[in-house]
Amino acid sequence: MTAICFSQPPTGMGPFSHKKKKKERESTVTSAIFGFGVTRRDTNKQNTDFMDVFYFVDLLPAKNGEEQTMQFLLEVVEILTNYVRKTFDRSTKVLDFHHPHQLLEGMEGFNLELSDQPESLEQILVDCRDTLKYGVRTGHPRFFNQLSTGLDIVGLAGEWLTSTANTNMFTYEIAPVFVLMEQLTLKKMREIVGWPVGEGDGIFSPGGAISNMYSVMIARYKFFPEVKTKGMAAAPRLILFTSEHSHYSIKKASAALGFGTENLILLRTDERGRVIPADLEAKVIEAKQKGYVPMFVNATAGTTVYGAFDPINEIADICEKYNMWLHVDGAWGGGLLMSRKHRHKLNGVERANSVTWNPHKMMGVPLQCSAILVRERGLLQGCNSMSAGYLFQPDKQYDVTYDTGDKAIQCGRHVDIFKFWLMWKAKGTVGFEQHIDKCLDLSAYLYNKIKNREGYQMVFDGEPQHTNVCFWYFPPSLRGLPDGEERRERLHKVAPKIKALMMESGTTMVGYQPQGDKVNFFRMVISNHAATRSDIDFLIEEIERLGNDL
Amino acid sequence: MTAICFSQPPTGMGPFSHKKKKKERESTVTSAIFGFGVTRRDTNKQNTDFMDVFYFVDLLPAKNGEEQTMQFLLEVVEILTNYVRKTFDRSTKVLDFHHPHQLLEGMEGFNLELSDQPESLEQILVDCRDTLKYGVRTGHPRFFNQLSTGLDIVGLAGEWLTSTANTNMFTYEIAPVFVLMEQLTLKKMREIVGWPVGEGDGIFSPGGAISNMYSVMIARYKFFPEVKTKGMAAAPRLILFTSEHSHYSIKKASAALGFGTENLILLRTDERGRVIPADLEAKVIEAKQKGYVPMFVNATAGTTVYGAFDPINEIADICEKYNMWLHVDGAWGGGLLMSRKHRHKLNGVERANSVTWNPHKMMGVPLQCSAILVRERGLLQGCNSMSAGYLFQPDKQYDVTYDTGDKAIQCGRHVDIFKFWLMWKAKGTVGFEQHIDKCLDLSAYLYNKIKNREGYQMVFDGEPQHTNVCFWYFPPSLRGLPDGEERRERLHKVAPKIKALMMESGTTMVGYQPQGDKVNFFRMVISNHAATRSDIDFLIEEIERLGNDL
Repeated sequence: MTAICFSQPPTGMGPFSHKKKKKERESTVTSAIFGFGVTRRDTNKQNTDFMDVFYFVDLLPAKNGEEQTMQFLLEVVEILTNYVRKTFDRSTKVLDFHHPHQLLEGMEGFNLELSDQPESLEQILVDCRDTLKYGVRTGHPRFFNQLSTGLDIVGLAGEWLTSTANTNMFTYEIAPVFVLMEQLTLKKMREIVGWPVGEGDGIFSPGGAISNMYSVMIARYKFFPEVKTKGMAAAPRLILFTSEHSHYSIKKASAALGFGTENLILLRTDERGRVIPADLEAKVIEAKQKGYVPMFVNATAGTTVYGAFDPINEIADICEKYNMWLHVDGAWGGGLLMSRKHRHKLNGVERANSVTWNPHKMMGVPLQCSAILVRERGLLQGCNSMSAGYLFQPDKQYDVTYDTGDKAIQCGRHVDIFKFWLMWKAKGTVGFEQHIDKCLDLSAYLYNKIKNREGYQMVFDGEPQHTNVCFWYFPPSLRGLPDGEERRERLHKVAPKIKALMMESGTTMVGYQPQGDKVNFFRMVISNHAATRSDIDFLIEEIERLGNDL
Repeated sequence: MTAICFSQPPTGMGPFSHKKKKKERESTVTSAIFGFGVTRRDTNKQNTDFMDVFYFVDLLPAKNGEEQTMQFLLEVVEILTNYVRKTFDRSTKVLDFHHPHQLLEGMEGFNLELSDQPESLEQILVDCRDTLKYGVRTGHPRFFNQLSTGLDIVGLAGEWLTSTANTNMFTYEIAPVFVLMEQLTLKKMREIVGWPVGEGDGIFSPGGAISNMYSVMIARYKFFPEVKTKGMAAAPRLILFTSEHSHYSIKKASAALGFGTENLILLRTDERGRVIPADLEAKVIEAKQKGYVPMFVNATAGTTVYGAFDPINEIADICEKYNMWLHVDGAWGGGLLMSRKHRHKLNGVERANSVTWNPHKMMGVPLQCSAILVRERGLLQGCNSMSAGYLFQPDKQYDVTYDTGDKAIQCGRHVDIFKFWLMWKAKGTVGFEQHIDKCLDLSAYLYNKIKNREGYQMVFDGEPQHTNVCFWYFPPSLRGLPDGEERRERLHKVAPKIKALMMESGTTMVGYQPQGDKVNFFRMVISNHAATRSDIDFLIEEIERLGNDL
């Protein structure tokens, strides 16, 4: 057996014998007077020195550790609030790009390697600053790279509180308030989906992929409950359907849960990326003719690349006709349900058996926050419960139907609800609506700006359904080329090249990808309520500045 | 289709027309001078009034929102630091228990219902205080209820930073520092497991149950890779083995992944809860005789209730003999690998094909932090990758082997690494060792204190292997009763009754459960480095105070 290798002899080794070289502090320190009842050791000293302060001997629960603990936390908060301010400041970069080998070799004073001996808290503070310095400001108004962007101040406060409470969602016993918040919020979401009086069930999961996985599991349990005990051998060959534009998590679920990716049939879409219902019906019939059992259809509300909304009502008709489970993956588009102007794009969602909806995407909630909603009550519990005696004791003094943990495939479960609940309180339903309408207005602005602009070509015609705007940029050198293989090949390299230049200059970030037979194009998405028209203008200027000479 | 119901007419509705009644502020406010470059509107005013301050119009990214944003965040931090101080203060309660219906009906000023209109930030701050007030202090030195306890100050700082960075682990592109930290930390963990030069692979997942699920998926992929595409129909009947004392997540995985719980064979254990290797071999032979394929064995390092360590080397011999995957579930006991004194309890772990290890349990890292480690490189990727073009573009400017997201069953993945990395920096390997040795010393203290004490009976003989101490308390009224059904029935009710009284008085919390044919007993666990011998003494006094007259 290999033992742990300590670089120092194990006996007589003081854990605090090793001191790091101090790096110059970059910022001023929280000032001399605190409202926290903390008496400073030296009130004349403006800068607390953490060089000789060590976690184990100086911070709580160490004896007399309260003062140093409070000072340390306030230093951290200063670093964080400085970061927050800079995030919203357009004069700061979105990122300061370095290659992996550069960071691994160690930037000045920033060493990622772990050591046997403790570092001083001075070094810990330096590490915190450096971690933020070399990261990416996902809340910056010009970060458009991901579906989840923005830095919501109330959501942030909620996450800080969640971390401080540091508890677990499995039982009411240790998370009474959070369990109730989850229950009330899920009910509200189901009402908004359109299920009568918010009936049904649901749970927050660690992301949209897991929420989608839940939907497939629950569908299987509904139709073939014996799979839980006997495995897939107890069921006939089951077929799942989803569009070729849908999120890859449906494919991951089909592999993980034992269906096999070959039993996930991809549906054709129209030029806008929406499922063609006739193709679904044809493929259902084909599967049945082979003796297979069509069981599950995923309709996407807001595809990842095009932002397309599948026609839910027409799909629901087919699901009802052939007795299949209808899941709506609204991870990205679910947020539009909060908008009276845009929710019609999800017409028919109330006919779904389950819905994935990620508040951490379009609603700007900090990561992670994803809900799986289920119309029929009892299925989640039936599918997943194992009734562990050490956790879900039936003889507790309170109503144990509030111990909701056994519905999950997880045991311990992070508290994802509080930040969302707090944001809802602070913004109201109307605030989310305002947020969503604003983002969609911005993407319409972008679309109108570039649809006829020289050098641009839209990937699909017409105004986008979601905030996704997909387009090619043609540098002047490509504009005269005839349509053909050479132009395609050169165009395919434009977006990656511009993106690389963007990241190196650190000014903005936007995604790109190929799709089907289409070469690399930009996918612009907006979910950050800090973004404005001037940021859209900036992005276009930047693409042209960086791409003009390619 | 059901529309959203707004309680106010949609037109002409100002989102800020609705003001909440102010609740009296409970604490003093961060004081007059900040080092944040914030100029107070009224420097003579000690209390900032957030009654007329609203998220949308006053906080960033609102114009001129910086000052209010900073003040709001500092108010939140004051609430949190007060909570931290109280958490370590033994004169405060562990919890202030209320039944679900009481909280739902609304405590004074604390209304869980979500509304259409925004609340003032004053109310948001009140909600933050109330959320903490009615919660459970899982970091309190007398909270012994769960495997995850304690409030690590550096870990907390790490979580606050993680929330502020608000990014996602799927690509190096948007989480360069965190991706590298994860890589280095996982390598270090594999070295400590004992795999040569830390070879292998791994990923942080949203908890031990998901980590265990990964192990089953990867084992299946190793032996029957075609299941990924063709489903379980492509494999023979596969059998999994785990002890009757193991965690229920193995059973959840067998149901979810399509094996079926009947194909998970439970192994007998000795009186200490450790697997009997001969029983494993007998059951493997039996399965083979039936024509089934034994594929996967889970050995638990630290069972949930008894804290037992299965004999890994003997199990590994059988796995090698019959060509089965060996997984070690060290969610709870993995931390002991950090201790030179206790790591021998996991002897043989380096022979495992995969290991679950939750730093959020025995190592005191804030929730969630769980790693799945895999000895053979490439399996995680092979098993789970779907190569989504919009995320994992091959034509990026950096080395895309650092885009590790496609190894996961998730798409978006929360940053769980930073707090752990930061704690490791601050404590060093030796600090974790100290933490673990201290907790095990404390449980030995408890064991020695009660093993011969009047009114106590140990559930199993001998010193516990982990910090789990399992015992019955007999109130005086039961002590004279002959062993038999009446005594069993009455004893079964003792632990729940004492636990209910504990929660109502709010003084301490400890778990209980039945196990097999054993009636309800207490399971004491210690992972909080704030706990001391005096807290153990207090627990025993409290059990006797509350249980004496039952």
